[in-house]
Amino acid sequence: MTEFELIALLTRGLATNNTVVTGPGDDCAVLDLGIPDRWLLLKTDAVVEGIHFQAEVAPERVGHKALGRCLSDIAAMAGTPTAAVITLALPRGFDLAFAQGLYTGINALASRHNVAIVGGETTTNPERILVSVALIGWVTRGQAALRSGARAGDAIFVTGELGGSISGQHLDFSPRLEEARWLAAQFPIHSMLDLSDGLAGDLRHILTASGVGAELLTTAIPISRAARLAAKAGASAKPPLAAALTDGEDFELLFTVPSAVAVSLLDAWKARFPDVRLSCIGKITARPGLILRDRRGERPLTDHGYTHFA
Amino acid sequence: MTEFELIALLTRGLATNNTVVTGPGDDCAVLDLGIPDRWLLLKTDAVVEGIHFQAEVAPERVGHKALGRCLSDIAAMAGTPTAAVITLALPRGFDLAFAQGLYTGINALASRHNVAIVGGETTTNPERILVSVALIGWVTRGQAALRSGARAGDAIFVTGELGGSISGQHLDFSPRLEEARWLAAQFPIHSMLDLSDGLAGDLRHILTASGVGAELLTTAIPISRAARLAAKAGASAKPPLAAALTDGEDFELLFTVPSAVAVSLLDAWKARFPDVRLSCIGKITARPGLILRDRRGERPLTDHGYTHFA
Repeated sequence: MTEFELIALLTRGLATNNTVVTGPGDDCAVLDLGIPDRWLLLKTDAVVEGIHFQAEVAPERVGHKALGRCLSDIAAMAGTPTAAVITLALPRGFDLAFAQGLYTGINALASRHNVAIVGGETTTNPERILVSVALIGWVTRGQAALRSGARAGDAIFVTGELGGSISGQHLDFSPRLEEARWLAAQFPIHSMLDLSDGLAGDLRHILTASGVGAELLTTAIPISRAARLAAKAGASAKPPLAAALTDGEDFELLFTVPSAVAVSLLDAWKARFPDVRLSCIGKITARPGLILRDRRGERPLTDHGYTHFA
Repeated sequence: MTEFELIALLTRGLATNNTVVTGPGDDCAVLDLGIPDRWLLLKTDAVVEGIHFQAEVAPERVGHKALGRCLSDIAAMAGTPTAAVITLALPRGFDLAFAQGLYTGINALASRHNVAIVGGETTTNPERILVSVALIGWVTRGQAALRSGARAGDAIFVTGELGGSISGQHLDFSPRLEEARWLAAQFPIHSMLDLSDGLAGDLRHILTASGVGAELLTTAIPISRAARLAAKAGASAKPPLAAALTDGEDFELLFTVPSAVAVSLLDAWKARFPDVRLSCIGKITARPGLILRDRRGERPLTDHGYTHFA
């Protein structure tokens, strides 16, 4: 059973109430709590030693990643983060310097985005460190960027460069908060998410939620230097394109807009964010499925991308 | 180092912003997000297999406890819970029926209190199950029941019966949400919290936060049947009074009110909640420290109660 199948099973028949705008299945939950002009966003995410980070990683980077993952999900809704609580599960006899370093990393990233750390708890997890972050934020009422709004003919965009995140980017990425809010303020974003499971798998989430398909142009997919380097590691290494399609934890934005605005969006982006690459990688189709197109023709992409339970 | 010393160390110099009304150190964080007439409450809490529940416990009860602990903290602020997200960390090859049973328990309790379960995530914790819940709620603006408002002369009250929770109550308790809101609506609650670390330790949290002391009348402390039974288990068993003072996870309300309203509060309580015991157990003093008074006189109580890192 994959993580997604498990989630689908567990989220059937969940308790609900009339504050819920968008429940499980998008990057954040969206709630109407009576804030004039705003909806509330709620997200939780955890990192586990040996799974999401190795024991020898500097604790400041672990803290950065733990909070950054949640911030990236707020970005994916075009939202603004407000406050977080931290659950720190530690083995007995844990290294105090590690716990302090972790909070140093959390605080540094929180301060950069004006997020308050307002509490949390410490508990015992005997075998390994686990850090769970719960984050609230907000988005202008009616303007949350969901996964379900992609339409046939939309252009598909992705920020940054993809693949090979495991070599370091997964610990040091910058959540695309400013970029996402700018996009939503300037252009009609039909759908958006942040890449955590790999381009192929995450694009499928948009396609499924929106009831559409997509064609990707392989030559347009931005491949990271880390993915190219990793491909040279040996005969069994993943080719760069496969890495860009299936490696997890890029934490870049994937979004769709009407194709009519694609060129003006690219121009405006280059002027506003000259240091962040933006690529138009394909289009949304009425025909279901995910197609890769290159000079030799087209082929269906069946790879579901990285899943945490694989 | 105790859990409390660790938390004090880690919560120094946390990132903050102008939404924070009450940060770390109370039962919930209190935030002003611009909801007219209301403040937002935010809380997170985790239960870990082998620490907070044993592997053989029915998963429905584990789910009940995981959400119930957070609900009890919302109650301690006299708040109303709204929505929760669940982080479920599972070993590989976990029992699917356990995960489903856990959600059954969570959903049943959530439905009873009109709480929406709006998302969460599953991740891997190889050695044991960990369930982390993040919960938001609200309280009438300006009326959050904090730990810091106790005043000399206040009467100290506690709901229910204390001690011996480990025999079952810690899995099956009813969060005192309705009771707490009724109290705050009817009476001037100077301070309140929910008992999670034991009466002696938790009362100290109120005393420290409020800069006061307290005298408890030992004969007035309500001792549970479970604590009395446990005391008969053998020569090394904890005496019932010690159990009521120091056993953790009672999840009852501890609060203080001006002594002038103590009698009318008791009368009104009996009429409104005839099935829930309410006991006046002592008074707040200007003199610092915690004193136990019985027929033989008074003695200082130095026991800090159960701490999770003990």
